[in-house]
Amino acid sequence: MNRVKATVAYDGTNFAGYQFQPKMRTVQSEIDKALRKLHKDPAIYSVASGRTDAGVHAWGQVIHFDTPLELELDRWQMALNVLLPKDIRIVGTEYVDDEFHARYSATGKTYMFKWSYSEVQSPFDRNYSVHLGKWRPDIERMREAAHYFIGTHDFTSFCSSKTATSTKVRTVRELTLTKRDEELIMMIEGNGFLYNMVRTIAGMLFAVGIGWNDPEDMKKIIEAKDRKKAGKTAPAHGLYLMSVTYDD
Amino acid sequence: MNRVKATVAYDGTNFAGYQFQPKMRTVQSEIDKALRKLHKDPAIYSVASGRTDAGVHAWGQVIHFDTPLELELDRWQMALNVLLPKDIRIVGTEYVDDEFHARYSATGKTYMFKWSYSEVQSPFDRNYSVHLGKWRPDIERMREAAHYFIGTHDFTSFCSSKTATSTKVRTVRELTLTKRDEELIMMIEGNGFLYNMVRTIAGMLFAVGIGWNDPEDMKKIIEAKDRKKAGKTAPAHGLYLMSVTYDD
Repeated sequence: MNRVKATVAYDGTNFAGYQFQPKMRTVQSEIDKALRKLHKDPAIYSVASGRTDAGVHAWGQVIHFDTPLELELDRWQMALNVLLPKDIRIVGTEYVDDEFHARYSATGKTYMFKWSYSEVQSPFDRNYSVHLGKWRPDIERMREAAHYFIGTHDFTSFCSSKTATSTKVRTVRELTLTKRDEELIMMIEGNGFLYNMVRTIAGMLFAVGIGWNDPEDMKKIIEAKDRKKAGKTAPAHGLYLMSVTYDD
Repeated sequence: MNRVKATVAYDGTNFAGYQFQPKMRTVQSEIDKALRKLHKDPAIYSVASGRTDAGVHAWGQVIHFDTPLELELDRWQMALNVLLPKDIRIVGTEYVDDEFHARYSATGKTYMFKWSYSEVQSPFDRNYSVHLGKWRPDIERMREAAHYFIGTHDFTSFCSSKTATSTKVRTVRELTLTKRDEELIMMIEGNGFLYNMVRTIAGMLFAVGIGWNDPEDMKKIIEAKDRKKAGKTAPAHGLYLMSVTYDD
């Protein structure tokens, strides 16, 4: 058996999220359907670095699957893209040894969150960024607030209360805010993220930007370890999984 | 009665074209529905500069409608955008005198046609540009071919054979090709365009770019006044109505 690692981009708009759900159109179902067609084997399946919610996009989701086939590398991409719907594209493939695991070998992830400033939201952006409407958040305040998230913290206040994991300690290594044309872009990189964590941080930074919270509040909110202390989760359609990193 | 001119942007993906059709989701139906709700009057309607096909987008379609209401200008935009679906946005409004007619007063239109070069088509572009796949058209050849379209010609060879208009003579004032990042952009401006004319010109320029036709062939094809001489109509989802001009 050969193990293939593939990088996957998808437009999350028309999916009920990444993970398989009976009778729903999910990214995983479509990928596994394509793999099964290609292999003529109903037992083959893929493993992803993690799930994403309904409406969340990806430029660089990573999956792996085991296969008895030995295609040339660029053939994998072509063969799968022919079978996949156009809102999912395989953008890269490589053979890896069987130590590699898309989820357990991951050492970091980068997410982007996008807001748009345009006076009227462009109809072309409606599923791809969160429209700021009349709000004009103060980026300097957001940057100040961002500092509090850097480092290793217990992020209980910033994950869905439904989250059941052994530890809610995560390390955020980078968190930047950039204005670019009519967009405000948050990039966040860390060793892993809890369920809803990026969207809750995005929502919190927005609240600071428009003056509902002060940058210093972040410290107290993190220390409270209470989801109710952090504000609204930002909408799914502003979020993109940009890349997953693995140690060589 | 007051006459309002409005500029409208729409993502054509989920519409069966611009024009009203019974039981179909069209741009016109949605606009007229919003106007009727706002006025509580089932007889109110809008007139557009012209129709666009299913899948064709607009950044600058222009409509007009007559109304007994006297809202402040920015109120029109807000009130209609609240009632419209998010894939249609009113991006500008002004009061005009009743000589103004969105269709008959138009003196020019600009369309854009977009191809994308990316090795794998981005899932985010799938409805917004035509993927070139392995093709790498020669832009200099396309520019040479473009010269033949400039000026006043009988464009019978470049419109759907279903077109029934008194004259097929149109004037193309500008036709440019530009490479920008991973996109090839055609911009065309003229006093008016026949049904499918822009997409047929785009298809023909592509054929020249990849060597199926020579730039000089354009002269013969235009002179033939025969739709069969021109090649394939380029796909609708690469096309955008950018603006409509009116003399003051």
